[in-house]
Amino acid sequence: MTSAVTFESISPADFFYRNRSIAGFDNNMRALYTAVRELVENSLDACEDGGFLPTIDVKLKEVSSNWFKLRVEDNGIGVPRDHILPAFGQILYGSKYEHKQARGRFGLGGKMAFLFGQITTSEPLHVSSAPAGGEHVFEVTLRQDIEENKPELMKWERRKNRDDKHGCTLEFTLEGNWRSAKRYIIDYVQQTALITPYASLSFTEPDGTVHKYKRSVRTLPPPPQPVNPHPKGMDIEQLSRIVEVTKTKDMVTFLRTHFHRVGPKTAKAFLKTINMSFSQDPRALKPNDLVKIARGLEKFDKWLPPDARVLSPLGTKLLEKGIRSTLNPEFVQVTQRPPNSYGGHPFIVECGLAYGGDVPMKESIIIYRFANRIPLIFDEYKDVAAKVVRAIPWSRYRIRPGMPIAAFVAVVSTKIPFKTAGKEFIADLNELEYDIRMGLMECARSLKGHLRQKEKVQRERVRASVYEKYLPIIARDIAALAGKRKVPETKSLVQSALTISLEGGEEVIEVPPPEEGLLEETPPVVENPEEMEETEEE
Amino acid sequence: MTSAVTFESISPADFFYRNRSIAGFDNNMRALYTAVRELVENSLDACEDGGFLPTIDVKLKEVSSNWFKLRVEDNGIGVPRDHILPAFGQILYGSKYEHKQARGRFGLGGKMAFLFGQITTSEPLHVSSAPAGGEHVFEVTLRQDIEENKPELMKWERRKNRDDKHGCTLEFTLEGNWRSAKRYIIDYVQQTALITPYASLSFTEPDGTVHKYKRSVRTLPPPPQPVNPHPKGMDIEQLSRIVEVTKTKDMVTFLRTHFHRVGPKTAKAFLKTINMSFSQDPRALKPNDLVKIARGLEKFDKWLPPDARVLSPLGTKLLEKGIRSTLNPEFVQVTQRPPNSYGGHPFIVECGLAYGGDVPMKESIIIYRFANRIPLIFDEYKDVAAKVVRAIPWSRYRIRPGMPIAAFVAVVSTKIPFKTAGKEFIADLNELEYDIRMGLMECARSLKGHLRQKEKVQRERVRASVYEKYLPIIARDIAALAGKRKVPETKSLVQSALTISLEGGEEVIEVPPPEEGLLEETPPVVENPEEMEETEEE
Repeated sequence: MTSAVTFESISPADFFYRNRSIAGFDNNMRALYTAVRELVENSLDACEDGGFLPTIDVKLKEVSSNWFKLRVEDNGIGVPRDHILPAFGQILYGSKYEHKQARGRFGLGGKMAFLFGQITTSEPLHVSSAPAGGEHVFEVTLRQDIEENKPELMKWERRKNRDDKHGCTLEFTLEGNWRSAKRYIIDYVQQTALITPYASLSFTEPDGTVHKYKRSVRTLPPPPQPVNPHPKGMDIEQLSRIVEVTKTKDMVTFLRTHFHRVGPKTAKAFLKTINMSFSQDPRALKPNDLVKIARGLEKFDKWLPPDARVLSPLGTKLLEKGIRSTLNPEFVQVTQRPPNSYGGHPFIVECGLAYGGDVPMKESIIIYRFANRIPLIFDEYKDVAAKVVRAIPWSRYRIRPGMPIAAFVAVVSTKIPFKTAGKEFIADLNELEYDIRMGLMECARSLKGHLRQKEKVQRERVRASVYEKYLPIIARDIAALAGKRKVPETKSLVQSALTISLEGGEEVIEVPPPEEGLLEETPPVVENPEEMEETEEE
Repeated sequence: MTSAVTFESISPADFFYRNRSIAGFDNNMRALYTAVRELVENSLDACEDGGFLPTIDVKLKEVSSNWFKLRVEDNGIGVPRDHILPAFGQILYGSKYEHKQARGRFGLGGKMAFLFGQITTSEPLHVSSAPAGGEHVFEVTLRQDIEENKPELMKWERRKNRDDKHGCTLEFTLEGNWRSAKRYIIDYVQQTALITPYASLSFTEPDGTVHKYKRSVRTLPPPPQPVNPHPKGMDIEQLSRIVEVTKTKDMVTFLRTHFHRVGPKTAKAFLKTINMSFSQDPRALKPNDLVKIARGLEKFDKWLPPDARVLSPLGTKLLEKGIRSTLNPEFVQVTQRPPNSYGGHPFIVECGLAYGGDVPMKESIIIYRFANRIPLIFDEYKDVAAKVVRAIPWSRYRIRPGMPIAAFVAVVSTKIPFKTAGKEFIADLNELEYDIRMGLMECARSLKGHLRQKEKVQRERVRASVYEKYLPIIARDIAALAGKRKVPETKSLVQSALTISLEGGEEVIEVPPPEEGLLEETPPVVENPEEMEETEEE
């Protein structure tokens, strides 16, 4: 009964075709949402790569029952002639991977959208690419050969670029479930507009309804610069790839040249800790040297934190503005954490808490999540932010279930550690958990002050009303007893009593120093990353 | 400021190296767990492929701080000489993909484990493969060239296979966090033993502690047979791949030859619905014909359900046995759903509910999840089973939070729709949601009966105790009033009253007919697969 097992190799396209749920294409509803999202992200990146204020137009049109033509036009940098075919027809071919903050990751998402369209409708993809500064516009029609993971050219036209516009227009057909996807797509477009105020977005629903968001700012955030990897968390593979290409001849120069924010002092201090000679030739390092270095880089604690300028966070002002404009809350507190890093990738966490106003009352806190200015709409439960929110002892901050509270967590990084290629939620790395917790707790502390104050005001109002009620009577009776006609005026008394106790109130707010929170909260996370997850699940 | 964008193509190995969290290697803790799990699964598959009763030995040894040597030995079919290098050194190279139930999916997991070991310790992988029925044992040492996605041979030895044993022994070193991973790994091994009673497993902890599970059954479940894809949910890509290779000359024969359980009658009935001539030559189909067929296959509702014999479900007996032996509950109800399919893949859902005994009391129901006899330990929240459990109106079944209740959901399929390559949780496909819901609700209905009965007994006990208390007194006083000496005996009276009302109790249990539940429960799922997920998350 021994059945001989046969072996085969499959292409990456074939792998993702067979496992498309990994990339967020599990069903018609999700596929439609993911397709819109991937294309909008690519367009935003293409515009920012070129330093252009993004103008993106998205149109969805039902061409037959459950078949939708998706058209996305941008004014980005465009795709150069020689790259058009692989860039749209070959999975795992994309704009070069650099340690640089970007929305897109691997030219996987967009192509998965085209692939999904092809396998559900067998319609090809139409690309119109006008590379910035180029003389031509290229009109290309192609399909993907999934088994071979290569593009199949169907039509290629070239015309003069008269009005020297630039950018890409993509058009393809896919099966979808608009009824279910509608709310998510509309949320996505709105929230995207919210965190890219420098972009003009327009989205046209199949029924013709147009959602237009004009840019409110005319300045792009400083473009994030590519950077060397941060020494912390560098693995042996990365290290040996650097060693293979380095031209440096000694370890000090090697470290200074290839790592983020490493100067001669730090380099030497580090080399001492692993007893390696400063003059050691990097190109002559043995495997066990690499191991020694990799482990050392991880342990060494004198590295400078990554330079924040390599990232372009939203900024607390913009974040607060966004929150106020959307939820018009009674109280907002936002904060930006100092830059941190994981596995050589710098990141910055920005947090916010909003209370009251249009924030809906829910049993649990509402969470808004952004990653490199992408709103994350699905799978909140699975996100590191949700994990942290579930774990924070809110009652300590006078926050109870049923209060109208929204939490905002925005992460920017040279590499967002998404848990799936679908880019729906962020993996629970200790470094991230820590910063999100600290950020939210900082906001929670000032919200606590606000709530305290609020309660105090209430209490005083009550007390005052008691005075208001009885003082006049007491005054009247005393006056009568004293045989006086004129009853003394009491209003001002009540008034002053009230104001005093309120002013008094402001002093009593004690905010615990962050160190305290820090000491309390770190160990559990670092000790056992999974504990928390499991306990929640029980 | 226009920065020219450069493009590159990367190998699948490089992709997964850069995105290893997708495959369950996000941190040292998770990596250690995933490594053990992937290797055990491959071993079980290798044994069952050969029809051998699995004997698998797993050893974990700490070789230096946070470095662990993992050694897994099995008596499986072994890897043939010519496949050893790619099978262990090339990602997306694996045992041929067939429509057949198997634990492993694409030779990704095991290789990701070796890759993780290599990038954290730079140690190579040692393979000892004795192909079943072969004359030799091959001792191979290799590394992975990640950028090229190809194996790097370091050492190759061949010796005679004297005691004609067969199987594989793998040994490699990886960085890990045993303290955190321990409980998950031990749970995994235990639960694996629970659902593969025909296997002997042993796991040795770093401290030398040995967990041994001897096989309790000496018969393998019938090996699942490869099958043609089920016509339902076939996409255009699959269809055109079949058309490319078919030797059939007319559509009727085409459908009968290449699809699961399609006879001439069904084939003709189907072809009529899409107005296609029976004699149409499949090799001459045009793209729009394929579209017509694909959409038709999906719509047509006369297909026979997939043949259950192609799957090897656990079986209700074995499932109940497993549950009783582990949790020794007061009440158990298990059920097997009729075979169903999604996208051409047949699947069977088995469900169980256990109450009382050693089932811990938790705020929410505890969920045990199995996929093709793999226990799923992590990410319960994200699993379709958890989604369904959250959505079932338990109160309707007298089930309240805080009751000691465990739910069991076992899915077997020719292709489990895992949401991530980490194979931690199952995607929420409508078909699956429906069967899991129906299965659990069926179990819930009989549990309801049990709970009802239990409550009734309680009530009666209380009532009886009242009788017990007052009857004697009443009897005594009446006797006195009647001037009688002898007080009549009352115990038997109480006894009978109790028994009568209990017997009466059994009739009153009404079990709603499944159709009802069916009508109630289907629409929300089919209408909008996402609604539920979102509403939970709010």
